[in-house]
Amino acid sequence: MRTLKVALLGCGNVGAQVARILIEDADTLAARAGAKLQLSGIAVRNVHAKRDVELPQELFTTDADTLVKDADLVIELMGGIEPARTLILSALRNGACVVTGNKALLAQDGPTLHEEADKAGVQLSYEAAVAGAIPILRPIRDSLAGDRITRVLGIVNGTTNFILDQMDTTGAQFADALAEAQRLGYAEADPTADVEGHDAAAKAAILASLSFHTRFALENVHCEGISSVTAADIAAAKDAGFVIKLLAIAEKLDDADGAKGVSVRVHPTLLPREHPLAAVHGAFNAVFIEAENAGELMFYGQGAGGAPTASAVLGDLVSAARSLVLGGPGRTETTTGHVPALPIDAAVTSYYIGLDVADQPGVLARIAQLFAEHGVSIEIMRQTIHRDAESNVESAELRIVTHRASEAALAATVEAVKGLDVINSVTSVLRVEGV
Amino acid sequence: MRTLKVALLGCGNVGAQVARILIEDADTLAARAGAKLQLSGIAVRNVHAKRDVELPQELFTTDADTLVKDADLVIELMGGIEPARTLILSALRNGACVVTGNKALLAQDGPTLHEEADKAGVQLSYEAAVAGAIPILRPIRDSLAGDRITRVLGIVNGTTNFILDQMDTTGAQFADALAEAQRLGYAEADPTADVEGHDAAAKAAILASLSFHTRFALENVHCEGISSVTAADIAAAKDAGFVIKLLAIAEKLDDADGAKGVSVRVHPTLLPREHPLAAVHGAFNAVFIEAENAGELMFYGQGAGGAPTASAVLGDLVSAARSLVLGGPGRTETTTGHVPALPIDAAVTSYYIGLDVADQPGVLARIAQLFAEHGVSIEIMRQTIHRDAESNVESAELRIVTHRASEAALAATVEAVKGLDVINSVTSVLRVEGV
Repeated sequence: MRTLKVALLGCGNVGAQVARILIEDADTLAARAGAKLQLSGIAVRNVHAKRDVELPQELFTTDADTLVKDADLVIELMGGIEPARTLILSALRNGACVVTGNKALLAQDGPTLHEEADKAGVQLSYEAAVAGAIPILRPIRDSLAGDRITRVLGIVNGTTNFILDQMDTTGAQFADALAEAQRLGYAEADPTADVEGHDAAAKAAILASLSFHTRFALENVHCEGISSVTAADIAAAKDAGFVIKLLAIAEKLDDADGAKGVSVRVHPTLLPREHPLAAVHGAFNAVFIEAENAGELMFYGQGAGGAPTASAVLGDLVSAARSLVLGGPGRTETTTGHVPALPIDAAVTSYYIGLDVADQPGVLARIAQLFAEHGVSIEIMRQTIHRDAESNVESAELRIVTHRASEAALAATVEAVKGLDVINSVTSVLRVEGV
Repeated sequence: MRTLKVALLGCGNVGAQVARILIEDADTLAARAGAKLQLSGIAVRNVHAKRDVELPQELFTTDADTLVKDADLVIELMGGIEPARTLILSALRNGACVVTGNKALLAQDGPTLHEEADKAGVQLSYEAAVAGAIPILRPIRDSLAGDRITRVLGIVNGTTNFILDQMDTTGAQFADALAEAQRLGYAEADPTADVEGHDAAAKAAILASLSFHTRFALENVHCEGISSVTAADIAAAKDAGFVIKLLAIAEKLDDADGAKGVSVRVHPTLLPREHPLAAVHGAFNAVFIEAENAGELMFYGQGAGGAPTASAVLGDLVSAARSLVLGGPGRTETTTGHVPALPIDAAVTSYYIGLDVADQPGVLARIAQLFAEHGVSIEIMRQTIHRDAESNVESAELRIVTHRASEAALAATVEAVKGLDVINSVTSVLRVEGV
């Protein structure tokens, strides 16, 4: 049986688990791959750093360049742009297959990496980059190769799902739920990349690229985080039968929607409580796909963590090894879709709008009229009257769920609504999916 | 661009959709596959039969042999054992890749077909055979190739899920729910293959084979259907926080379980209402997988229907075409697991037992003692007293949920319980998963 040399770059949470499994499960992996997968070394910055897993000290090196030059398979788990980018390109040029979980690099510079892999005829795989352990990229690329995906809705960031789930369950404010997530290790000390949606945006670009056979970059993704979601937003959504999730969305629009192309975006989104994604709790991830023939599909599992993500890395590694052993194609992605990325203004979705209005006759009619004038159709309109016990002043809260409308039409409608004298304030404007 | 000839065998519900998509989406499929996929003919028994979709009459032929001889890719959707088996073998020997949805043939004679495909170095794919549109076989084979699956729980038969869901929602008896399923087209006039679990058993054999890298045949699968599940069973389960689902189960047991190997079985199963599979309603399918590193995964979608199943067929077809164009390995399944199939007696699970008992002091203690003597540990024991309003006679109902125990130990316990003078009757014995 042939032996393939595996170079591991990086030995954090995921890398350490990958190394452990490569050593512990060597026989099983060899049987699956058709070749021995020999861990030839682990490139790290500090060879004496403390690791999550005990590993043979002689494997560690700071010389990533030499390690890569001698490898048949390279696993890149360093993260960040450089030196990861240079090392991956060098590995591909040497004819090594590369497995990476580096979503930031893929979202920023994917086309360059893919081009190099195609030129060398080797595999570049990155199942671990989106939704951790969940097999989602291979099903999109291969299983749905004969179908047309129309929409992808993904809960692809465990930190924000945990925070929103906490807020939904306990009524906590964002800051308190974030603190709890940090205490439990679900959020980092600097949570910006997660809570502002940047991590989800990189994953959205990857999901959109594979789903629509066109390379989308990070700059094509409209991104809003969850830091402005309030306990009041969550409570109002709950009351109306919705849950708020941070979704990565990639959706094909056509002439009927007013714009032709793909809208790729990340933002807090209301979902009906009976939607399959609404039942995704804690730090779990899930990706919901709508395709012309397959209909609705959902993939659910752990989106992060050392061992789960290592499972995705090793699935890619065994597949790449098989292709080296049996001789086979590197290239299995197609980018012949050539659909344009649409700006957020062209996105079409439903909206939830909360309004604090004067309690006067005719208010509802005036607001409804204004929506109609802007071409935004109302699906549900509900008014609740509050009376302040002390002052005895009545105020009215109006909650509106619209049918699908463009961002531009909605923005214009909200502007117009703000100008009405009967409006005290617009309390929330949130997008709704799955209705 | 190269042209590949595609022979379609069978033109029922799924076949007609496959033909439609091959014609309508020819350009997209060519771009994805890297070759034109030309539908060279459709073999049917009667070329003039009425079809679901309008297709060019000149494509139809009764001469399947000639069609197969001239094809690069063969799609078999005739079902049944012969002539499907002979035609598939002939195609593989000619070096054609074969895509099939024939679960009965695969469960009965999979090893022969795989051997032939390996010999010819071509792909034999069958994503459509299990859970319709849901990409499940490729994720198990490729994405989880570096992990160890420990358990698979699948809702893989839409008919029985619809019936059980109806019974759960409306309180209907089995016969009425079946009649409703037949009226809506979810169940056939002769529903035996579905309701007795035979269809699910063939899928269980396929799922077990891929998950445990060992070929399991239909005879390795213990099979019980749902025709004996009563409205009272469903109501009692509901009352205790469970839902009853027909599950296809493949589970690895080791020494700690008293037997080493894989238990493959199909039977009505109680699931806690908060389990992800409990939320799979109507005719939908889902497969829940537990793996050592990945943890819990779930795949959800439509398990049947023309277009959804055609999506799975075409995903396989495009992948097979890519391998023909780029030159690549046919064989990507491994069968080096060599784990034995266990008989149902060795299966280890939890149980729900309903007992009608005499309302006397000390009854609970005697029953608990008897369970302990047989090594079956009780997790929950709940007694409800009923008083007949007319006769004023009291009777007691006892509901027991056990910890994990072997079938053999449970059967012995139930036999012993029946012998107690304080037992009026054993009202139900059902297996429980997901607790």
